[in-house]
Amino acid sequence: MPAALGPSNYGKSRVRLFRVTRDGERHDVADLTVDVAFEGKYRDVHLQGDNAAVLPTDTMRNTVYALAKQHPVTPVEGFGRALAEHFLGATEECDRVRIRIATHGWERIAVGGRPHRHSFVRGSGERRMAYVFADRDSVRFEAGIEDLEVLKTTQSAFEGYIKDRYTTLPETRDRIFATIVSARWKYASAPADFDAAFAAVRTAMLETFAEHESKSVQQTLYAMGAAALDAAPEIPEIRLSLPNRHHLLFDIGRFGLENRNEVFVPTPEPFGLIEATVVRTE
Amino acid sequence: MPAALGPSNYGKSRVRLFRVTRDGERHDVADLTVDVAFEGKYRDVHLQGDNAAVLPTDTMRNTVYALAKQHPVTPVEGFGRALAEHFLGATEECDRVRIRIATHGWERIAVGGRPHRHSFVRGSGERRMAYVFADRDSVRFEAGIEDLEVLKTTQSAFEGYIKDRYTTLPETRDRIFATIVSARWKYASAPADFDAAFAAVRTAMLETFAEHESKSVQQTLYAMGAAALDAAPEIPEIRLSLPNRHHLLFDIGRFGLENRNEVFVPTPEPFGLIEATVVRTE
Amino acid sequence: MPAALGPSNYGKSRVRLFRVTRDGERHDVADLTVDVAFEGKYRDVHLQGDNAAVLPTDTMRNTVYALAKQHPVTPVEGFGRALAEHFLGATEECDRVRIRIATHGWERIAVGGRPHRHSFVRGSGERRMAYVFADRDSVRFEAGIEDLEVLKTTQSAFEGYIKDRYTTLPETRDRIFATIVSARWKYASAPADFDAAFAAVRTAMLETFAEHESKSVQQTLYAMGAAALDAAPEIPEIRLSLPNRHHLLFDIGRFGLENRNEVFVPTPEPFGLIEATVVRTE
Amino acid sequence: MPAALGPSNYGKSRVRLFRVTRDGERHDVADLTVDVAFEGKYRDVHLQGDNAAVLPTDTMRNTVYALAKQHPVTPVEGFGRALAEHFLGATEECDRVRIRIATHGWERIAVGGRPHRHSFVRGSGERRMAYVFADRDSVRFEAGIEDLEVLKTTQSAFEGYIKDRYTTLPETRDRIFATIVSARWKYASAPADFDAAFAAVRTAMLETFAEHESKSVQQTLYAMGAAALDAAPEIPEIRLSLPNRHHLLFDIGRFGLENRNEVFVPTPEPFGLIEATVVRTE
Repeated sequence: MPAALGPSNYGKSRVRLFRVTRDGERHDVADLTVDVAFEGKYRDVHLQGDNAAVLPTDTMRNTVYALAKQHPVTPVEGFGRALAEHFLGATEECDRVRIRIATHGWERIAVGGRPHRHSFVRGSGERRMAYVFADRDSVRFEAGIEDLEVLKTTQSAFEGYIKDRYTTLPETRDRIFATIVSARWKYASAPADFDAAFAAVRTAMLETFAEHESKSVQQTLYAMGAAALDAAPEIPEIRLSLPNRHHLLFDIGRFGLENRNEVFVPTPEPFGLIEATVVRTE
Repeated sequence: MPAALGPSNYGKSRVRLFRVTRDGERHDVADLTVDVAFEGKYRDVHLQGDNAAVLPTDTMRNTVYALAKQHPVTPVEGFGRALAEHFLGATEECDRVRIRIATHGWERIAVGGRPHRHSFVRGSGERRMAYVFADRDSVRFEAGIEDLEVLKTTQSAFEGYIKDRYTTLPETRDRIFATIVSARWKYASAPADFDAAFAAVRTAMLETFAEHESKSVQQTLYAMGAAALDAAPEIPEIRLSLPNRHHLLFDIGRFGLENRNEVFVPTPEPFGLIEATVVRTE
Repeated sequence: MPAALGPSNYGKSRVRLFRVTRDGERHDVADLTVDVAFEGKYRDVHLQGDNAAVLPTDTMRNTVYALAKQHPVTPVEGFGRALAEHFLGATEECDRVRIRIATHGWERIAVGGRPHRHSFVRGSGERRMAYVFADRDSVRFEAGIEDLEVLKTTQSAFEGYIKDRYTTLPETRDRIFATIVSARWKYASAPADFDAAFAAVRTAMLETFAEHESKSVQQTLYAMGAAALDAAPEIPEIRLSLPNRHHLLFDIGRFGLENRNEVFVPTPEPFGLIEATVVRTE
Repeated sequence: MPAALGPSNYGKSRVRLFRVTRDGERHDVADLTVDVAFEGKYRDVHLQGDNAAVLPTDTMRNTVYALAKQHPVTPVEGFGRALAEHFLGATEECDRVRIRIATHGWERIAVGGRPHRHSFVRGSGERRMAYVFADRDSVRFEAGIEDLEVLKTTQSAFEGYIKDRYTTLPETRDRIFATIVSARWKYASAPADFDAAFAAVRTAMLETFAEHESKSVQQTLYAMGAAALDAAPEIPEIRLSLPNRHHLLFDIGRFGLENRNEVFVPTPEPFGLIEATVVRTE
């Protein structure tokens, strides 16, 4: 058959790990979803059905739990690195390991106004993401945010665009801007404090979104990306993906009522999708 | 045909309403999902295809937006009542209106440590629920919470249960207790302040969950329900539905490691499901 | 505390069972999701934390798999009955068992035009539902369908309804009628062949939907329910829930084009929701 | 600020289109989800908030519906091409258009054993995918399948793999192999019949999955990809992504019962994930 194997990878996805760290009566929790992927010399696996080079994905799963006992799981980038290095040591045929870790948020329940020592309530759907890429020569880190949902009720305009025969959208100087931020950035070098770097990027993006006098989603996206680069010197580039979750003015003029940007219909689909990378220049 | 019409209802579901209230530069938002259902004299609609008695569900939708301009939408119970009373006035054949309103949470973005005047970030998936049941003689209110996800890492035991030939679960004095609270309660009379009543019930349930020395999900459920009744005198009964989202100890003993309640696997299914009503006595 | 326990139940939900039956080289599969719920004398469990009466939900789960080895799992109603009777025998405190079984569809892959002996492709999202309610005196069966999505492109009208100040919907003699059928019916007595009874009801509903000259969702719902009663004499009543998944005509008239019921926008929300019970009258 | 714009794109996602074609009483339907993305000279949009080069995503949406009236929507690749060419003609600043079209399946309802002329029931969740990439010099096509869920109950083994200290998986010569096929392939040139090419690839993959004596998911993936290349000479390469949806043998040996590959637990997570590209050689 005139066929050959191109790029391939295999691994285990959605390994759910909940790690409790007890400091006396005070407990800390880390709620993680870990994905592991290997790339390497797997031609015979695919073509011959020879599994001699295969570390089973079930073993990958077991290893995540075993290492979660033996290593700190936060910062998650460090845990990802420990996993990657373990796997590179466990099998010769694997040339490159990718670890992806999503962190799900929990906040302490307030009891009598004070954060409880061991009881928690789920935070928003926002997830902190960490990515580790390791081979036998190097390790590289990326980070990101998924499902950070934000909205501003004013200081968002959209005017001066192309009109053609299929254009019906009215120009506006005041609309709702609602989006669900996905961001992913590279670290040129490992930051001294991964948690601080993440927090700085997140804060920069949120504050920029809140304060920006937006002329378009595109412009605000760029401002958010540039602010992230300003906030964390280790980041050479950041990619943002901003769906424009349209909140439509409902036409109550038909009923003799005036809608002064008060009554909106949030719509799930279709949505605009604006994506761009912002890169640091020297 | 030997058939007849039994109980019936019709209406519009998932009317999404986003209401902005502007107080100068400070904006408040209400993000609601409204369901409307009518019961009434609709036999000919079903049997004859005679629509003379039908207020279209599309009109119900329009009305939600029109009234959102003309009435306050918070407290949501008041908005629901306005909707119900409008609909009872709009059609003779409708005998009973049910309004269900879910409130989706938004929090102000902190900029420089201060809540922003018009920019928001999505809260958790928890939803406050309001239910209004109205006919031409009376109006009745219920309220609830959905998807309030909580977890405690200790002070939860499960011992002393029945063992049979299919039992493999080990007894434990210390396990994770994770659940997603659904609660729904009745108001014997409309509270003076619906928002305060809701907050009191929510706080009572959360604090009880956090502090309870749990011998079972059942026992904690009852304690949470009783605390809710204590917190809000207008409530004659409350029903709670608590899925037991099992966090399994991962067996790292096979690898010569000891799991001191540190490494868990959160599992989506199957789940225990504990449901009960707690009622006020005299 | 002036509180008491009202109605309660507990059990295990979403027990996933995949059962393979091998008849030589030909394999049959049953892909089921089983929910188990107990009602009974559980006051001390809730109030005292005394678990002496509790058969753990983990044991319920184990029992589903153990009995799936020892009993046929189809017809699912028979399997549900075996489960219920086992549980009533396993614990004195349980007064009533409810079993709910969803069947997920698989079809044989066609190879060279012939159904394969052991390879399958997932069918639609439609699920056959079975419900068994058992106490020590009796057993009762219900059945149903969930997520049966259907659509007709014509022979659906909606005219002659109430118009008020908030009405904007135009009357129509020709629209798309799209819905996702949920149906649930009782069996007055156990049918001789549960699978045949289910198939008869399903076919009656589908054929009626296809052929009906619909003047409203309400009228078609009633016709479908009446046809189901006609098709299966064991059924005293059936409840149908039909969301009206609106397919809106897109306004291309603005572009000088005529939309002769050709170009539609399927919308996920809001949706009409029409629900009714059709009952047999001898 | 030391920042610059890297790669960017913008467009409209999830434009839902339902197109009815009437041939007398017989109606055909196409249920599509269309995504549009532009790449081009959008630096000033991002950096200056100058929208002069922006065709609004709302206009993209309108255009999808307008062209669905004026052009056939099947084969979807042709419709995608018409959209792409329109957009390239509508704006100078756009250099490259990407169109992605998902087709959702509907089957005719059988009435009295015959396919109905205008009534349909939803098929499986499987989606046919089409991708068109166009600039002013060329147009390029890709196609794919998403969510094609398949399962075989035997002729799947997994043996001879690496064992280390964290390995607990037993070797097996007979297991369930369940996966959800995602495939995507390129066309070196537009096939004479896009629908036939798609059908040939789909059949080749399904039949290979059904018949393959699998030594691993990797080996079967490769065989499926090679069969696809065999079936359609226009395809230079195909990428497959196969999650291994584990069906675990439930341990009923603890209850004195023997599980002869009969009683399984389907698990949603974690899952193996096997991905590879198969390329045509000369």
